[in-house]
Amino acid sequence: MNLASKPSALERATRSDAQRLGRPLTGWRLKLYTVIFEADTPAGRTFDLLLISLILASVTVVMLDSVAGYRQRWGPVFDALEWAFTVLFTLEYIARLSCVMRPLRYARSIFGIIDLLAILPTYLSLLVPGLHALIDVRVLRLLRLFRVLKLGAYVEEYGMLGRALLASRRKILVFLSFVLLVMVVMGTLMYVVEGPANGFHSIPVSVYWAITTMTTVGFGDITPKTELGRFIASAMMLLGWGTLAVPTGIVSAEFTALRVRREPTTRTCPACLSVGHEPSARFCRDCGARLPRYFTDTEA
Amino acid sequence: MNLASKPSALERATRSDAQRLGRPLTGWRLKLYTVIFEADTPAGRTFDLLLISLILASVTVVMLDSVAGYRQRWGPVFDALEWAFTVLFTLEYIARLSCVMRPLRYARSIFGIIDLLAILPTYLSLLVPGLHALIDVRVLRLLRLFRVLKLGAYVEEYGMLGRALLASRRKILVFLSFVLLVMVVMGTLMYVVEGPANGFHSIPVSVYWAITTMTTVGFGDITPKTELGRFIASAMMLLGWGTLAVPTGIVSAEFTALRVRREPTTRTCPACLSVGHEPSARFCRDCGARLPRYFTDTEA
Amino acid sequence: MNLASKPSALERATRSDAQRLGRPLTGWRLKLYTVIFEADTPAGRTFDLLLISLILASVTVVMLDSVAGYRQRWGPVFDALEWAFTVLFTLEYIARLSCVMRPLRYARSIFGIIDLLAILPTYLSLLVPGLHALIDVRVLRLLRLFRVLKLGAYVEEYGMLGRALLASRRKILVFLSFVLLVMVVMGTLMYVVEGPANGFHSIPVSVYWAITTMTTVGFGDITPKTELGRFIASAMMLLGWGTLAVPTGIVSAEFTALRVRREPTTRTCPACLSVGHEPSARFCRDCGARLPRYFTDTEA
Amino acid sequence: MNLASKPSALERATRSDAQRLGRPLTGWRLKLYTVIFEADTPAGRTFDLLLISLILASVTVVMLDSVAGYRQRWGPVFDALEWAFTVLFTLEYIARLSCVMRPLRYARSIFGIIDLLAILPTYLSLLVPGLHALIDVRVLRLLRLFRVLKLGAYVEEYGMLGRALLASRRKILVFLSFVLLVMVVMGTLMYVVEGPANGFHSIPVSVYWAITTMTTVGFGDITPKTELGRFIASAMMLLGWGTLAVPTGIVSAEFTALRVRREPTTRTCPACLSVGHEPSARFCRDCGARLPRYFTDTEA
Repeated sequence: MNLASKPSALERATRSDAQRLGRPLTGWRLKLYTVIFEADTPAGRTFDLLLISLILASVTVVMLDSVAGYRQRWGPVFDALEWAFTVLFTLEYIARLSCVMRPLRYARSIFGIIDLLAILPTYLSLLVPGLHALIDVRVLRLLRLFRVLKLGAYVEEYGMLGRALLASRRKILVFLSFVLLVMVVMGTLMYVVEGPANGFHSIPVSVYWAITTMTTVGFGDITPKTELGRFIASAMMLLGWGTLAVPTGIVSAEFTALRVRREPTTRTCPACLSVGHEPSARFCRDCGARLPRYFTDTEA
Repeated sequence: MNLASKPSALERATRSDAQRLGRPLTGWRLKLYTVIFEADTPAGRTFDLLLISLILASVTVVMLDSVAGYRQRWGPVFDALEWAFTVLFTLEYIARLSCVMRPLRYARSIFGIIDLLAILPTYLSLLVPGLHALIDVRVLRLLRLFRVLKLGAYVEEYGMLGRALLASRRKILVFLSFVLLVMVVMGTLMYVVEGPANGFHSIPVSVYWAITTMTTVGFGDITPKTELGRFIASAMMLLGWGTLAVPTGIVSAEFTALRVRREPTTRTCPACLSVGHEPSARFCRDCGARLPRYFTDTEA
Repeated sequence: MNLASKPSALERATRSDAQRLGRPLTGWRLKLYTVIFEADTPAGRTFDLLLISLILASVTVVMLDSVAGYRQRWGPVFDALEWAFTVLFTLEYIARLSCVMRPLRYARSIFGIIDLLAILPTYLSLLVPGLHALIDVRVLRLLRLFRVLKLGAYVEEYGMLGRALLASRRKILVFLSFVLLVMVVMGTLMYVVEGPANGFHSIPVSVYWAITTMTTVGFGDITPKTELGRFIASAMMLLGWGTLAVPTGIVSAEFTALRVRREPTTRTCPACLSVGHEPSARFCRDCGARLPRYFTDTEA
Repeated sequence: MNLASKPSALERATRSDAQRLGRPLTGWRLKLYTVIFEADTPAGRTFDLLLISLILASVTVVMLDSVAGYRQRWGPVFDALEWAFTVLFTLEYIARLSCVMRPLRYARSIFGIIDLLAILPTYLSLLVPGLHALIDVRVLRLLRLFRVLKLGAYVEEYGMLGRALLASRRKILVFLSFVLLVMVVMGTLMYVVEGPANGFHSIPVSVYWAITTMTTVGFGDITPKTELGRFIASAMMLLGWGTLAVPTGIVSAEFTALRVRREPTTRTCPACLSVGHEPSARFCRDCGARLPRYFTDTEA
């Protein structure tokens, strides 16, 4: 084979990885690996698109299958399609196992487990016929989309979203714990004020209602009937409505900080003429020269 | 005619366009074009205002016509008005076709199709009497407002909104796909937990309910009844409520970046006529000339 | 009177105003004016607090009076209190009229009309007994709070809120018109899809439902029943939910711009050492000296 | 005892505090104080974790106890657990009283009162058997979590949230008073338009409905039925929906101002140990020393 005599950059990189990580990939295994795990080659891109279509189609079948009317009419068609999807996903699972360097490590990774969960329920339903609930685990096939999308064009966006949320995770946690505490206390208060006669059957139910109200969902299956209850509910709604400003403010601030960070600032180094030095800096961050004294607006 | 002997700047520009694009506009066609497509002349402004009134009036008639009580009482009046509007819009459509340089190109453009959709249903209802649903396509006449407003004073605002949303379109798409995935998985979970007995008849219905809940709409036509279902629903509400912070944060960051970058001020230098000087500035930043004393809007 | 022999600063200012505006205020009229319209004197502050209490008490009585049970039990008490409030507000109205320099101008101002609306309904109810609806105009007495609060400590905050909203009023208008257009089109679509059989009785009702849904209020009095209707509704909810980010982003950007404007920047004038010059400035805004060339981060 | 012969830094600090504040802590009281009030020692951390578990467990029991089904089945178990929790909290209360320097001052502090409220209801229920409502005060035990969490790692986050909200408290107050005023006026308007026949029984009920609608909660227990009512309701929803942008904008601006002002980074200068250097800096901004190569979190 010509490819073997003069290895491509990818092949060399894969080989050096292989030397570090285990058995080197060659021949059909390398080809399969390129198709399945690479997104930049035409074959890899085709494979990804095919896989996305398969996942979406199989989830659509699972969803339509749950509608009583469709089930009655096209039950056998759905079953046949389901088996076709399962066989294809099984083949893909085997292919993945066979072309990675460390099959066991892949099988125990998060994506490996999701891949297994995508095919297992159908086989299990053969053994245990009444396994209805487990069947719906197949919707988790959607999680497989993450792997495909991760390889695509959206990596950067995902990363930025993640970093911003990670940066404010403690603020969000503190806020959420505080909100939950208020919701539990308010729910209990409403249980005492309204009582089981008005639909607030127990404290857990009242807390569920408090969450419904303060997140502004407001199902209306349980509503306050007494005057005091309605007054407290009004206060809760206003509180919940206004409180939404806090997580939004936290995330907005993070995003704005990320977005605005590269705004041009004007403090200039006298030695290398680089700009954008912080107000409190005393030395240039690019050449280490001493910066002239800084006068703030407020000092002036 | 005097106008013909000494062509105006507009006329000359239109003519040079015409030389590039096709048959030149002259005489009544140029006049008509100026009235219909230009917004800066008194005639053009009057035409636009008239068109806006006509569109709003015709849509109001369509809406009132759908109310059973009004239909019974003023049916013939509504029909007469509808024919009047249709005839006027038809005349306008013909006028537009006749004064543009490339009629076919206009007819196939988005606005050309919307203009046709505005008049077609009424004529079609004459041929096919039972065409009730198609009749309501006439509400799409509202889309015609965009053309008129586009020519008006709001162009810049539209442009800024569009740019900010365009700049964050990929972040929004990634976010939306992630949210939809969570909603499908949560909806399926609720279908398994609550089941058809509690109103969660199928997975599509449960996903519809999940969207209802996580967007904090909360119709209340379907609500969880079991304890576990209510617990999961509570988690979903908190998640959906908090998640709203993410698109808001994205858009806020974009708008803030656009807004902070260039402050729109109107202070003008008397020497070099440059604008946008800060309220506290005493000298022009572009030519160094002394600026006149600054009066704020609120002082005046 | 001693006060008359040596006029205070306030008195002199009022007099000079009077010379410009009409009949000068002296004696008891000046004293009354100081108590009623000034907020910085102890008497003025006491008067304001009393007025706020009166307004809140009278509105509370109007509200309780509307509850059938309370009306039945304390009807005469409510009527007596109402007359007491009306007499007091009438006296205040007369006092205001008598101590301003141009009574007619005050009577025709917005606050003058609100003051009249606060007392008129009670007198009218004496003439026309069945005037129930008009009676509730008395709740507009709450608007009188604005005048009192305006004189208080919150002026600055109100002003900032107003400026930020005013600055983005055109963006908000464009956005709102676009949202309304989408709501009308979507409501009509749902009327066609669901129809009167499922509660979507007419286009206006369907548009009302569309507004209910897209603002995430979700009463649940009307809900889609068909599959297609639920699918469209889901799309509408997601759209409305995400769209909320736009006005929030606009207002956030305005507030942030106002809040961040005074952030210290570091471009320094070589002549007067003032800092905070804009990146594009060529001359110092404080002394007019030429600024050294500016290097941006992106250039480097 | 060895500890007494050579006092630790903590002990010395506590002693000097004691000289200033009252009777010095020594022997078992100092040890107890260290365990209960200190969070940095292993014993203190264990105590805090134990207390958090106890609080959460006791509140869970209170909540489950309110569910009729569970109460019937495990009533005696719940009572036994409740007494166990009460005895433990009582012991803790006594321990706290005995090891602080000024027991009375602690007993009258907010946390002292909450601690008492956590144990009192159970003892009172022994004396007054029918005291159901008071029993639920025990949920306030959750407030005790604040003390424990305050000692933990979240102090800084709480502080920042608090400062940002405090900084915008007047803006929020003005906004809230304005919103409430609009809600009262709109509620009254709807009472006049819809009337008791359509569920708007009185002005307070209508104001409750107005709050439900404008905060986008939308229970749906009361809904407008007339055309005018629905039109006004639509306007209210749009207003409430858009108005949410204002508090969000205020808080976002505060957070952004706080966030942009000082980026929290951990890059440390090897020469002067200053932290917070920018990712792209090559020299220390405080001493001019060369910084080691920068590895981002994602690279590592």
